Amino acid sequence: MLKISKVSPTIHKCFEPPILPLSRTTIRLHSTIPTQPSKPHLKDSATNTSHEISKNQQLFFTDPISPGSVFFLPNGVKIFNKLVSFMKLQQEYKYGFKEVITPIIYKKSLWETSGHWSNYKDDMFKVESQNQEKEEYGLKPMNCPGHCVVFDKFDRSYTELPLRFSDFSPLHRNEASGALSGLTRVRKFHQDDGHIFCTPDQVEQEIVKCLELVELAYTKIFKFDTINNKQKQPYSLTLSTRPQDKYIGDLKIWDHAENILKKILKENGKPWSVNEGDGAFYGPKIDIKITDHVGKQHQVATIQLDFQLPERFNLRYKDKNNTYKRPIMIHRAVFGSIERFMAMLLDSNKGAWPFWLNPFQAIVIPVNTKNEKVMLTCKETMEKLRNTSSKTEDALSPVLLNSFHFNVDMDARSESVGYRIRDALAKNYSYLIIIGDKEVETGKVAIRTNSSRELEHLSVDEIFAKFSELEKNYL
Amino acid sequence: MLKISKVSPTIHKCFEPPILPLSRTTIRLHSTIPTQPSKPHLKDSATNTSHEISKNQQLFFTDPISPGSVFFLPNGVKIFNKLVSFMKLQQEYKYGFKEVITPIIYKKSLWETSGHWSNYKDDMFKVESQNQEKEEYGLKPMNCPGHCVVFDKFDRSYTELPLRFSDFSPLHRNEASGALSGLTRVRKFHQDDGHIFCTPDQVEQEIVKCLELVELAYTKIFKFDTINNKQKQPYSLTLSTRPQDKYIGDLKIWDHAENILKKILKENGKPWSVNEGDGAFYGPKIDIKITDHVGKQHQVATIQLDFQLPERFNLRYKDKNNTYKRPIMIHRAVFGSIERFMAMLLDSNKGAWPFWLNPFQAIVIPVNTKNEKVMLTCKETMEKLRNTSSKTEDALSPVLLNSFHFNVDMDARSESVGYRIRDALAKNYSYLIIIGDKEVETGKVAIRTNSSRELEHLSVDEIFAKFSELEKNYL
Repeated sequence: MLKISKVSPTIHKCFEPPILPLSRTTIRLHSTIPTQPSKPHLKDSATNTSHEISKNQQLFFTDPISPGSVFFLPNGVKIFNKLVSFMKLQQEYKYGFKEVITPIIYKKSLWETSGHWSNYKDDMFKVESQNQEKEEYGLKPMNCPGHCVVFDKFDRSYTELPLRFSDFSPLHRNEASGALSGLTRVRKFHQDDGHIFCTPDQVEQEIVKCLELVELAYTKIFKFDTINNKQKQPYSLTLSTRPQDKYIGDLKIWDHAENILKKILKENGKPWSVNEGDGAFYGPKIDIKITDHVGKQHQVATIQLDFQLPERFNLRYKDKNNTYKRPIMIHRAVFGSIERFMAMLLDSNKGAWPFWLNPFQAIVIPVNTKNEKVMLTCKETMEKLRNTSSKTEDALSPVLLNSFHFNVDMDARSESVGYRIRDALAKNYSYLIIIGDKEVETGKVAIRTNSSRELEHLSVDEIFAKFSELEKNYL
Repeated sequence: MLKISKVSPTIHKCFEPPILPLSRTTIRLHSTIPTQPSKPHLKDSATNTSHEISKNQQLFFTDPISPGSVFFLPNGVKIFNKLVSFMKLQQEYKYGFKEVITPIIYKKSLWETSGHWSNYKDDMFKVESQNQEKEEYGLKPMNCPGHCVVFDKFDRSYTELPLRFSDFSPLHRNEASGALSGLTRVRKFHQDDGHIFCTPDQVEQEIVKCLELVELAYTKIFKFDTINNKQKQPYSLTLSTRPQDKYIGDLKIWDHAENILKKILKENGKPWSVNEGDGAFYGPKIDIKITDHVGKQHQVATIQLDFQLPERFNLRYKDKNNTYKRPIMIHRAVFGSIERFMAMLLDSNKGAWPFWLNPFQAIVIPVNTKNEKVMLTCKETMEKLRNTSSKTEDALSPVLLNSFHFNVDMDARSESVGYRIRDALAKNYSYLIIIGDKEVETGKVAIRTNSSRELEHLSVDEIFAKFSELEKNYL
């Protein structure tokens, strides 16, 4: 093997200044947190905000070695995975979606069938083998053609419809390098993607359910309506109708589809507007947008009716009378891009994550760091809440499925308790656990939230139960 | 947009005959399972076995539109996701790994630095943008260079070591099309990949822990030692030593590293062999293989010591004395490729999945399908065990995080109870729940396993608790 010149460190380090990361895994008796308290510096866009917070909280970074592809750091992955878990559970056990895992590269012929090769080529990456088999592929920018392949792989019956596929595959779109920005404008991203294959009769009910999930997510769980103590519309709804010229399909079907969407939007009860002529060429759609703290709108969720792709892929199912029918396809995403959704959350919470999403759920503060008993109780408290199993005698005891594990640190620096409390608040820990002689004696530790000075005295088991209750309810 | 000729149905359907899929989401009062009882037809390799079972159980398929990339169907995804959950929990809360999500495409320069572009090019896919910015990328065949970028992005201190990154990214290797086969020889796959950056002093302990996790997985959880009621060595251990000529680095370091691995293998207490000269060019390794039912060995887990990549990427950390040191890198995977590991499980269990992994966990059989009360109790039992929340009044009640949901079907075909029981056994359901008049009256339903005719009478809540206990303990 040839010796190759080393990569220039400037390539890897020019984008962001180096930061000493928080070490959260190794259990140390001394502090696991950086010395400088740090409040995010608020700038004037969602992108800058999330970039600043990410630096402080070690959530993600980008690098010119792969422009537009986010490197998620462990703290960012924790949030990413929780968002995915939330959505998978709702989709699978509330809305009847079935998850599939589909390929990332497909032969050019698929993209010719779907129409992407002629209409979307500039936004797609081309993939080629470098051995003798010269094959040409496209790196997928969306999941729909792959889901059409899955639908078409089997003989389908009306009894299977509505058939709802979900997919969390990485997608790549070749945005111009000048447009790339943090989590909002990327080249690699993950959608909470779903495609519903259904009969014309089922369209209305399916879209109503999509809107219900949007409402559950944006209002109930992520509380975009009460951010910064201000009441606001959590999201806006826009109906985009048939384009004047560039559209495919029958006018009657378009009118029918638009009427369905209008009816649903009226009955939904929330304000909505029409964007005439802004529908996709294949069908009308409902776009859901949220507004960032400087008033810029970002598209997040989308619900699109599609009569075209089923046609192109010759999709069909057997109806009651044993004759073949064409299904209708609904494209929908609730978060939209998980990356962009995280940017929206960062923009609205400024790094003060709700407990269940917080990489900084609690911090243990020993009152006297020289007292061995206090230090031992602190360490045990942290380990119990982390629910880690690292003892040698438990080598063959697995960590249990669906068990809870909390992100708990300890600050045992030789600073005053007051200083460490202020620092923990600045770092957005959800809970502060303060342990002194008295707590060691009684077996109950003092715990407070980041918003109230009031101390409660609880056993570690009680705290674990309390934290579990919060996390499982997305609080 | 241009109208494009439709894809030929032969492209999507030539690889496997169409099968009517099991519908598991829509709740129907009539059967949700196919009519023909089906036992896997055992052929002569792991690949054929898994292919047969997959067809019966609807686990996955492949298609010429993306050769070597597996399409996982919903039942296959359930198993895939459970395997990933198991490994994430062990890695994160037992072995101190931190998950990262890293890009899939990297500029050519990264692969030049890592040495892949000159040594591994034929096995890699090249990625190109098709717009004006003509950039050349490589589609990643492994995660290590990306993890070096993450390590190098920050100033690292000895206090952070060992630093253990885990990653479940999709990887692509351009295997020759003739070599592709089911789940065992693929082009797109997922490793339970991990890279440990550590000091020379930490190598031994880290590798001991890797072997511990291998033992936990292969012996305790996946029981490769007692498959088919035959006692056997669950896996074999091989030490691959320095190649005669093609190696990089100092002889002393090689000897030191090989001695560490020998010492660990001796103390580990299991038989092991030496494969002289079969180490990687950058360091010695321990390969873990399992044997399929026809005696063919398959490499699964691997633990590799690497002194070379840290050199190429100029990785360094500050030691106690504030001087820069080069970390050592350990590459390791426990499942190896999740796809191949699933093939090994299929080869050994022949589709009879343990409860926690089974897409067919239980089936509800009404004794008299004409009795409305019996049918209602059956439907309620199925819904409670699925733990779905589809009622309109609960629109804004989320499905809770970390909640259990079981894969339960109902067979309400107008066949005899005996026939339906035999059919359920042939389909490898773990539990059979039989409900008649008596069960409706008492509120306790009759439940049996697939291996014993003995009936137990339990309330649905008791069954839910029993199933939860099994699943969380990986049983």
